[in-house]
Amino acid sequence: MALPLCTAVKHPFRLIHISSFPRRLMCSGVCTENKVHPHRVFSGIQPTGVPHLGNFLGALENWVALQNQYPTVLYSIVDLHSITQPQDPDQLRSNILDLTASLLACGIDPEKAILFQQSQVSEHAELAWILGCMTSMPRLRHLPQWKMKSGQKNEGSVGLFTYPVLQAADILLYQSTHVPVGEDQVQHLELAQDLARIFNNHYGDLFPEPRTLLSSTRKVKSLRDPSAKMSKSDPQTMATITITDSPEDIALKIRRAVTDFTSEVTFDPETRPGVSNLVMIHAAMAAISVEEALSQARGLDTGAYKKLVSDAVVQRLTPIRHEIGKLRSDRAYLEGLLAQGRKKARELAAPVLAEVRHRVGFS
Amino acid sequence: MALPLCTAVKHPFRLIHISSFPRRLMCSGVCTENKVHPHRVFSGIQPTGVPHLGNFLGALENWVALQNQYPTVLYSIVDLHSITQPQDPDQLRSNILDLTASLLACGIDPEKAILFQQSQVSEHAELAWILGCMTSMPRLRHLPQWKMKSGQKNEGSVGLFTYPVLQAADILLYQSTHVPVGEDQVQHLELAQDLARIFNNHYGDLFPEPRTLLSSTRKVKSLRDPSAKMSKSDPQTMATITITDSPEDIALKIRRAVTDFTSEVTFDPETRPGVSNLVMIHAAMAAISVEEALSQARGLDTGAYKKLVSDAVVQRLTPIRHEIGKLRSDRAYLEGLLAQGRKKARELAAPVLAEVRHRVGFS
Repeated sequence: MALPLCTAVKHPFRLIHISSFPRRLMCSGVCTENKVHPHRVFSGIQPTGVPHLGNFLGALENWVALQNQYPTVLYSIVDLHSITQPQDPDQLRSNILDLTASLLACGIDPEKAILFQQSQVSEHAELAWILGCMTSMPRLRHLPQWKMKSGQKNEGSVGLFTYPVLQAADILLYQSTHVPVGEDQVQHLELAQDLARIFNNHYGDLFPEPRTLLSSTRKVKSLRDPSAKMSKSDPQTMATITITDSPEDIALKIRRAVTDFTSEVTFDPETRPGVSNLVMIHAAMAAISVEEALSQARGLDTGAYKKLVSDAVVQRLTPIRHEIGKLRSDRAYLEGLLAQGRKKARELAAPVLAEVRHRVGFS
Repeated sequence: MALPLCTAVKHPFRLIHISSFPRRLMCSGVCTENKVHPHRVFSGIQPTGVPHLGNFLGALENWVALQNQYPTVLYSIVDLHSITQPQDPDQLRSNILDLTASLLACGIDPEKAILFQQSQVSEHAELAWILGCMTSMPRLRHLPQWKMKSGQKNEGSVGLFTYPVLQAADILLYQSTHVPVGEDQVQHLELAQDLARIFNNHYGDLFPEPRTLLSSTRKVKSLRDPSAKMSKSDPQTMATITITDSPEDIALKIRRAVTDFTSEVTFDPETRPGVSNLVMIHAAMAAISVEEALSQARGLDTGAYKKLVSDAVVQRLTPIRHEIGKLRSDRAYLEGLLAQGRKKARELAAPVLAEVRHRVGFS
């Protein structure tokens, strides 16, 4: 599951802290020149289906925490971004609903967070066009994701090239003040910050410069190759635990997890990445500290410890799996919920775009 | 006045003919695979203010003719395209209304043609995003307008680079079958044709491949330099007649028009571009043939002939100038008319975009 805005999914145990956020007297939000913007969090997730354990411990736990910490939180299923790579339409359609069900089951509360499908809010594409007219070609050419994804010949699609501009539009459209990002997305957030600044300088203050919500960078690793991160696209099915995996599959995958030739359980991600990955998963899923996990592992060899880990994972995921199953069977409910999210998102987006249109000279 | 879709403005006396349009039995519209698409014309014009004589004799007369020839005709004031170059917001706002007034005064009939402002129909930007995900970067890089406008260093904005994709969206959004284009836009129309084909192949038949409505290529020349075309951006005010110029200004500009040292009036655009430009303007404005214009010029030297030409121009433009003045003073009427156009355009665009969204997998 690639996340264009929040690659937080890759980072478990994210300890949220606000980076470069000056606290000012008389300013309870983010201040630009004369205006105080109320705190508003935006993040997006690509609809690549049911999340895996890496997504769950990274982004989703983080997202659940954020909805309780900020007055306005928007989570967008960014389907416009997903088509920058080839997609099967039927798969995409079902992925969108599966992800909606998964997010709800993992604890996203539609009363606290605005959960919506990006393509249902036309203002995203509209603002992206306007911001694209304020973005220079060289600025995009130098972003590392384009270089990486388009290959050596720079032969990707126009959508793949311009998606950081759409990301900027996603964020600025809601006058977002805070954006949870992974390290690999920091440069894209800088583009959003630059565009906010360029727009404000040219047309008067409108957008706060969104701040990064950086998190700790610990990552869930592949169960088959602990030097790589857990990934949905891993060809080895044993490498990745999906949050809807059956208890038997979870037990099997953890039993087969690659460790090393030392039987003792210790936590040293550098020299013993395999077993340390299991300790980290155990601690996270049982909501205990790494020290507590190690204490529970005392006297067990890695083989016996794996049973403890898989029990913790099964116990945490079982109610989520059941909830996803229930929600998935009620397509009308999920669609209705996205329609509500759309309505709420548009209530915030429409006046901002109307103001942008006026300042640019369209109305 | 630069036209992104219809550079017809540069070509007076356009003789419309349908190029590469196979007539098939049992097919009264444009056929793609299994479906017949009713004839539909789309063209766009950038809001750069009141048109000049080159625009009037090129695009506008052509547009007025087309609205009587096709069952559905859409004319869009393409403000989203205009911001690919820097714009003053107040100027842009008034240019949009001035152009609306001018189009009406020149004979665009809102009962026959759907006249609307591009940015008021969100589906343009939305479809542009989707089509951008189907357009390769090399395909755009090789378009001549980008090379020309971005300069040698390829340093224009993202909007300037991607605007042919927005053009394609403008056209395909209405399942347009015919598009009046100037020679310099043929390659852009080819992109729209390619994208129609790519979409149809991938997602099933939806878009007709739009055909060019090519016209004759005679051009109104600058009155100060008959080797250049008449242009709004000409720094010499004497070079360009705006359709709201006063009779005195028109007479002065034509009196000062550069001809040559031969006093006889003949028509030979190659060797005598200055006087031939006047003959062409005379014939077009008086709605007579070039032969008839020459016959009226018999016995006159170019100085005396210029009086004949300016009389013809003044006679034709005076009612238009009055009408523009009347319409300009009724901003609410113009805005209401654009709102009506928006409504009609969206009635056509919304179901097409809904179908695109469904086929791509968004709904």
